[in-house]
Amino acid sequence: MNLREEAKIIIDNALMSAMPDNAVARAIGKMDLEGGRLVLIAIGKAGWSMAKAAYDNLGDRIDRGVVVTKYHHSMGEIAECIEICEAGHPVPDENSYSATRKAIEAVTGLSEEDKVLFLISGGGSALFEAPAVSEEEMADITKQLLASGADITEMNTIRKRLSMVKGGKFALTCAPAKVYTVILSDIIGDPLDMIASGPAYPDSTTREDAIAIINKYGLKLSDNAMELMNIETPKELSNVTSFVTGSVKELCESARKTAVSLGYEPIFLSASLNCEAREAGRFLASIVKDHMDTRIPLAFIAGGETVVHLTGNGLGGRNQELALSAAIELSGLENVLLFSVGSDGTDGPTDAAGGMVTGESLGKLKAAGIDANEILKNNDAYNALKAIDELVMTGPTGTNVNDLTVALIKV
Amino acid sequence: MNLREEAKIIIDNALMSAMPDNAVARAIGKMDLEGGRLVLIAIGKAGWSMAKAAYDNLGDRIDRGVVVTKYHHSMGEIAECIEICEAGHPVPDENSYSATRKAIEAVTGLSEEDKVLFLISGGGSALFEAPAVSEEEMADITKQLLASGADITEMNTIRKRLSMVKGGKFALTCAPAKVYTVILSDIIGDPLDMIASGPAYPDSTTREDAIAIINKYGLKLSDNAMELMNIETPKELSNVTSFVTGSVKELCESARKTAVSLGYEPIFLSASLNCEAREAGRFLASIVKDHMDTRIPLAFIAGGETVVHLTGNGLGGRNQELALSAAIELSGLENVLLFSVGSDGTDGPTDAAGGMVTGESLGKLKAAGIDANEILKNNDAYNALKAIDELVMTGPTGTNVNDLTVALIKV
Repeated sequence: MNLREEAKIIIDNALMSAMPDNAVARAIGKMDLEGGRLVLIAIGKAGWSMAKAAYDNLGDRIDRGVVVTKYHHSMGEIAECIEICEAGHPVPDENSYSATRKAIEAVTGLSEEDKVLFLISGGGSALFEAPAVSEEEMADITKQLLASGADITEMNTIRKRLSMVKGGKFALTCAPAKVYTVILSDIIGDPLDMIASGPAYPDSTTREDAIAIINKYGLKLSDNAMELMNIETPKELSNVTSFVTGSVKELCESARKTAVSLGYEPIFLSASLNCEAREAGRFLASIVKDHMDTRIPLAFIAGGETVVHLTGNGLGGRNQELALSAAIELSGLENVLLFSVGSDGTDGPTDAAGGMVTGESLGKLKAAGIDANEILKNNDAYNALKAIDELVMTGPTGTNVNDLTVALIKV
Repeated sequence: MNLREEAKIIIDNALMSAMPDNAVARAIGKMDLEGGRLVLIAIGKAGWSMAKAAYDNLGDRIDRGVVVTKYHHSMGEIAECIEICEAGHPVPDENSYSATRKAIEAVTGLSEEDKVLFLISGGGSALFEAPAVSEEEMADITKQLLASGADITEMNTIRKRLSMVKGGKFALTCAPAKVYTVILSDIIGDPLDMIASGPAYPDSTTREDAIAIINKYGLKLSDNAMELMNIETPKELSNVTSFVTGSVKELCESARKTAVSLGYEPIFLSASLNCEAREAGRFLASIVKDHMDTRIPLAFIAGGETVVHLTGNGLGGRNQELALSAAIELSGLENVLLFSVGSDGTDGPTDAAGGMVTGESLGKLKAAGIDANEILKNNDAYNALKAIDELVMTGPTGTNVNDLTVALIKV
């Protein structure tokens, strides 16, 4: 197999591992779901496919379920006992509230023996919400907060207390039943308190914080809302076990395993890259250059989400820029390949997932009359990589867990 | 020992290893200089201290020597048999030519038993030069080349052939004596054909290349110069053994050894970093963040020379920016330290060698009322790091082999 074929296998396996169904199945495999009733709650944009995967794995073990996903994101009935609700995103609407109330009902009155399988994906913040005050007061307080100049942390401190599910309250409602959460993370670093506003994660803010914010900005709240401020959010949740799955870490872990199976020694660098895409490309190329003489096949693995600061009006994406920038530095090296791909299959506003380059790429670009540095200035990596057939095309993948970047040195 | 004390030891040892005298002594230790006469030639800005180190190690074993260094760079007589010449830099002058001719004389007529110890440092290109045509014609051809639009590779292809020493010709003059070169490299990647224009390194350009360039630009050369174009430069030099020493690679290697002695598992990343300083800082911080749970003390080691694109008018240098940028990302992590230092002891236009930050640095900056992101925008890392006492101050070190960046995770 040549380098490109091996790289293609690494990409295919990694994307496969990040598919919601595989990710959910993997997490369920690690749970002890014996005994009691089992309630399924799935929220977020991948809610339907996560619920479907759970049903495919657990079948009639599931007693009842509620799925809350975005409009047009349901793909039909899963089972009679599972109610599928579509609701507003990114702005919650009446359907968000009613669906969330159905989920609350489904987990209310459970016993210690019972289990809740709680599947969380991106978009959960808007889709899974039920105000504990009237919708009018909720809107009014939000308006006051926006006008006050409060920062995002301060806003969330107040809003968690106005919600029936956020800040760990949903898990509290499930108690004493055991809650198994499966989190399909699309936020770098997997901050569990932020994904879907942490409905099953302990809240670190206190009622003192909340009251200080109200005083600081002179917010006007009804007596009912003030009472909510005074109720402490859960600081620990002993009934919750969380499984983060299908995250960029698993993308990297899959790449590691495949690389090993192909005979490479894997070197994991990071799953939280967040620097400028082209500079990440140069940094990785520097690493590659100084490992050319190790005489061991090496695979450097990184994940995350780099950024691009536009300086031109060409076509491209962060993964394509990273690859092109690396190509400039890797020029002339033999038996070297670097790819960077977005797991959703669409890098920037393009139909490519990313780019895959070698030590020959720069020469090919030159032969095609393309100046790679000018291309970078114009953010036009798509057209450059397309010209030398070094785009990675996967089509939309059905998952979205950031990016995977791998550099291979073959000997 | 705490992290800062350990980091300080790593820095001190690395700088010590990169001092010209230590570097030369280390290289000499690897040579077999038995038998025959020994001629010492030292060129470049560090020529005097390299020659001094050689004499301190070899003493009367040296039969004769010529040092060619920059004006005011001699620090006095080394030994009676060693002639010290000062000459023009960066523009060669009559003293460059005469000193170079003395060096040529000193190595002419040697036998197979004899040895030449050839010590090369930065600035050698200008200091070590003797035209093989008249100075007038040399100037005239240079002028024609500059007016022609020839690129640097084309210019060097011609100029090597007009020189008596460049493009491997000096080593050819030494033959059949064996030549041991010691190269104090300050160019990333140690391109031996470029350092001092490669007087003892095979030339990759051909006479066909030279003649093609002359025809391409319609250059006018005298018959004598045309004859020189037709003489092939050496394509291999079997009498030369090269030792690159005191380079950024050795800086990294020293850091690796010290880290091991302090109980760290070393992970060498690169000795040729060349990306934007602040992005390198973020990349390294991402690596650190995702190795916090390994439970092994880790030392990530990188060397090179990052770049800074000025967007403000503050005070700082690439190493200080790298460290400050990393500090933002490392905020809140415990038992973590990152430093970046320039081996010359002066980072940018400052009196600091670089910066040394931890997971507490950002908090300290905030407490001091300093916004790290604003500081970066204004390229003012010096003042920010100074305020929290996290500058690395070494004073001028007497060497210059790029930068060393190390991140430590203690457990």
